Amino acid sequence: MTHDDIAKRIQALGARKTEKMYANDFLLTWEKSDDEIMATFEVAGIFRALRENNISARVFDSGLGISLFRDNSTRTRFSFASACNLLGLEVQDLDEGKSQIAHGETVRETANMISFMADVIGIRDDMYIGKGNTYMRDVAEAVQEGFNDGVLEQRPTLVNLQCDIDHPTQSMSDALHLVHLFGGVENLKGKKIAMSWAYSPSYGKPLSVPQGIIGLMTRFGMDVVLAHPEGYEVMPEVEEVAKKNAAASGGSYARTNDMAESFKDAHVVYPKSWAPFAAMEKRTQLYDDRDEAGIKALEKELLAQNAQHKEWECTEALMDTTKAGKAMYMHCLPADITDVSCKEGEVAAAVFDRYRVPLYKEASFKPYIIAAMIFLSKFKDPAAKLGELLKAGARRIR
Amino acid sequence: MTHDDIAKRIQALGARKTEKMYANDFLLTWEKSDDEIMATFEVAGIFRALRENNISARVFDSGLGISLFRDNSTRTRFSFASACNLLGLEVQDLDEGKSQIAHGETVRETANMISFMADVIGIRDDMYIGKGNTYMRDVAEAVQEGFNDGVLEQRPTLVNLQCDIDHPTQSMSDALHLVHLFGGVENLKGKKIAMSWAYSPSYGKPLSVPQGIIGLMTRFGMDVVLAHPEGYEVMPEVEEVAKKNAAASGGSYARTNDMAESFKDAHVVYPKSWAPFAAMEKRTQLYDDRDEAGIKALEKELLAQNAQHKEWECTEALMDTTKAGKAMYMHCLPADITDVSCKEGEVAAAVFDRYRVPLYKEASFKPYIIAAMIFLSKFKDPAAKLGELLKAGARRIR
Amino acid sequence: MTHDDIAKRIQALGARKTEKMYANDFLLTWEKSDDEIMATFEVAGIFRALRENNISARVFDSGLGISLFRDNSTRTRFSFASACNLLGLEVQDLDEGKSQIAHGETVRETANMISFMADVIGIRDDMYIGKGNTYMRDVAEAVQEGFNDGVLEQRPTLVNLQCDIDHPTQSMSDALHLVHLFGGVENLKGKKIAMSWAYSPSYGKPLSVPQGIIGLMTRFGMDVVLAHPEGYEVMPEVEEVAKKNAAASGGSYARTNDMAESFKDAHVVYPKSWAPFAAMEKRTQLYDDRDEAGIKALEKELLAQNAQHKEWECTEALMDTTKAGKAMYMHCLPADITDVSCKEGEVAAAVFDRYRVPLYKEASFKPYIIAAMIFLSKFKDPAAKLGELLKAGARRIR
Repeated sequence: MTHDDIAKRIQALGARKTEKMYANDFLLTWEKSDDEIMATFEVAGIFRALRENNISARVFDSGLGISLFRDNSTRTRFSFASACNLLGLEVQDLDEGKSQIAHGETVRETANMISFMADVIGIRDDMYIGKGNTYMRDVAEAVQEGFNDGVLEQRPTLVNLQCDIDHPTQSMSDALHLVHLFGGVENLKGKKIAMSWAYSPSYGKPLSVPQGIIGLMTRFGMDVVLAHPEGYEVMPEVEEVAKKNAAASGGSYARTNDMAESFKDAHVVYPKSWAPFAAMEKRTQLYDDRDEAGIKALEKELLAQNAQHKEWECTEALMDTTKAGKAMYMHCLPADITDVSCKEGEVAAAVFDRYRVPLYKEASFKPYIIAAMIFLSKFKDPAAKLGELLKAGARRIR
Repeated sequence: MTHDDIAKRIQALGARKTEKMYANDFLLTWEKSDDEIMATFEVAGIFRALRENNISARVFDSGLGISLFRDNSTRTRFSFASACNLLGLEVQDLDEGKSQIAHGETVRETANMISFMADVIGIRDDMYIGKGNTYMRDVAEAVQEGFNDGVLEQRPTLVNLQCDIDHPTQSMSDALHLVHLFGGVENLKGKKIAMSWAYSPSYGKPLSVPQGIIGLMTRFGMDVVLAHPEGYEVMPEVEEVAKKNAAASGGSYARTNDMAESFKDAHVVYPKSWAPFAAMEKRTQLYDDRDEAGIKALEKELLAQNAQHKEWECTEALMDTTKAGKAMYMHCLPADITDVSCKEGEVAAAVFDRYRVPLYKEASFKPYIIAAMIFLSKFKDPAAKLGELLKAGARRIR
Repeated sequence: MTHDDIAKRIQALGARKTEKMYANDFLLTWEKSDDEIMATFEVAGIFRALRENNISARVFDSGLGISLFRDNSTRTRFSFASACNLLGLEVQDLDEGKSQIAHGETVRETANMISFMADVIGIRDDMYIGKGNTYMRDVAEAVQEGFNDGVLEQRPTLVNLQCDIDHPTQSMSDALHLVHLFGGVENLKGKKIAMSWAYSPSYGKPLSVPQGIIGLMTRFGMDVVLAHPEGYEVMPEVEEVAKKNAAASGGSYARTNDMAESFKDAHVVYPKSWAPFAAMEKRTQLYDDRDEAGIKALEKELLAQNAQHKEWECTEALMDTTKAGKAMYMHCLPADITDVSCKEGEVAAAVFDRYRVPLYKEASFKPYIIAAMIFLSKFKDPAAKLGELLKAGARRIR
């Protein structure tokens, strides 16, 4: 992209209403207006273009980005670190125990203690239904109070790096990938996307990806089909969001217990394992009760239930039934690939291999999406600031 | 604070004698002159004002701050990281085993190997009486030799982030909090502060906080009372420091075995658990001897001794006896709060809750205090350098 | 070194052919031309001189250096972090399990996922013969493909921080130390260096140091003698490299089973433990087969074999037989010192103590060597860029 193209993009961004993103958090895509979603895509694209032109997007002379992961992660950790680094923030990791469910008092204190010089806090907390997003809001409230009380010099922005409800940095990257693929957001209209459950030997994966996808893709007029075996329902309130979005955007939202039906004539397929919502709710309660016998019994039950659905695999035969046999295959990675990472998995090796490059490109948007989320919360007039960066033209590699 | 106010503060700093801080370490507050202590407060305040005015305090274009924690820590780690980041240094953590007591040879070699590009080393080593501060001095000697021998291009500054004797970054932050509270160092004169032992179910906490407090607050003409049950004496040499300080400053230093007596009419109370000095000395010897049976026996004995003093709790009733019933309650955090973090703790929940905001503010000074300590060891004419920063006015968030 | 001296050095560098280093990796010294080796020394020296003159060598406004250590490390980790920091890159650590041998699919995916904003990846993977260097090449191929496919915005440079074959950052630092000691590369000609096996209670140390030394020092016309007990052979292909180098440089390469013979009249001695190549190959196979009984049996056998060679110690008596009794003693550190770090080790305490300062200096070159390797892969005209840095004269400590 040339200098002039970037300038045009910045100009277009100037027309978006993003004032409410300023000094605010990014927790759920459906809390954001269409303009805010579009602005996030646009800023991400501009950052990518600046970088490809070796123009520095450093807007912080110093500052910290805190990563708070309550689950292991390599990809998201590096995406967050990349985004922070792009903007000039240094990452500090706060690793809490994986199984720890923090209580109110601790959250308030810890949130303040790590935030004296924090410009952003990225949180991943996806393991317990009803907990992750709540935790993020507790942290947000704590730092807001800290700022109001004069404890904190600045109010760090929160970015949801995956919770029990949504995975906005993933779904936004996925969407931006589709925007590139189809040549514009407007071209997503009328395209069918199958968000389908798929079998994996690990049965307890978060629901945030399917929920994030149906909660976001319905905004663009897409025909979104959620497919899963009986018993693998997602959170009802997110389905409500999807329905409302579809009605507003002129798209559709449907649910089926038939993987083949969802793939039929689909332009995009997203086959992925997740855990049943009801079981995850029960599991959270068992953890709260510290009922270890109950947890073990539930895991056994879930494994048995899971094993009944090994036929939910993204095969070449299924791919043949998609639009012209050429649907885009998507995944948040890492995928469970049959005969590669496990004996029976979410996707056939041949399918996965054919889509490797687009899959990696899909992932490559995430650092830019995160950087855009941070940036939009830090600058009241993002177009003006990006214009300054472009004009200054400071070289990233000097 | 306005630009002009900051300029005035910088001018006042110019009158302080800080030459001896240059290329030197910050290990014990009582090794520093009154001017040096005041300069540290002043630089911390100027850094805070610069940041609040979005003026960058970055004085390093590149450079490393090494954190060497021989005990777990979240708060101090983040304070150190924040201070380094404020100045432009990138933090690298060196995590040694928690129980390892390094030997001379290793210290010398490791100290040099991590310091080729280190501008500062922050060390927390508070677990063994007679070890932590000694270790810091060993590291200081090693890097001085390395610098003299031409091994190191620069001589990294050492900052004591808590040792067996003192906790200068804590006590200095605490003092700066009081300076703000009472409207100037001069107003600390004649104020009574109770540094009191308090019950906690974890019986082996470091002595560095009470020692740091009595060793520092006595310098400002305060009436410092150390209260603890019999058997919970602190290091005699630190009490000597406190007595000498009190004599010089026109304050006083007293010790009592009665918590209520210490709280009576106090302007400030600091109730906190610590381990008995004599027992901690014995414990160090047992660790040196690798006498595991002895360690277990000692722990059992200490727990029993500890359990006898559950009435040492900072209650509302006790708070009522302080000056106008309104003493400032202080703590280095995290506190053991009765019925919140434990069944019986250092402080009643109602008291703690009432002081939450000032407690967080107290903690918020630490990054600035650490930054001031580093800065004063790096610039011969700190006022001139701060003047340059103010004049340049480079924006932190650009 | 004065400003003018640095300018002269930069001018000399301008005559070196380094085009092939641009956008390339540094995996084995013997893949590099003489000009490329010399340029690396020269850039390292210029970086050191710039730093000693407080001139910033920051060439990245933002960017990440990824460290991927598949073995514990403090020294190399800090050297890599220092090099990155010197150039303006922030380090992100990717810690994989120590025993994990990653498979093809995972390598390709992980390499891309961590590289979206990575300018350099430093890898240490030295534990399995036939694996470490292969792994580095797999990563290199993966990021090259990612770059070609448009997944990665830049192609990160790979730096070998120690593999099963070579340890180029170590051997290059060692060589630069000798260049300083003897007053120029040309003065290495005709100097005898003994790379000798030495006894250590830990029997499984990597072969990369002795292999790196014989593969590099033979290029400078040195008389290189490799000494070890029977059964402790190094990789035959590296010996071939050493022979070819020696023939080309007018030096010599010889092997002996007699430590004393290698020390006789040596100008430099490098006594160090390593594991037998054949046994390490067998061990890799056992790990691949997950043959735990086999691994234990092999370890027992190796310990028994190892214990037969305790007389391979660098003693004062042996040192007396070197050139004028004053050979330079070298080690990559940490050394196993008799009666200090172990009962019977590689070197007598008196010898080690006498050489402590030169040993630390030897180590001090590593951050600069690593920085030079990164720099030379990032700038097509390194002399021009260094000239810019010198002319700009931006202060590191401002």
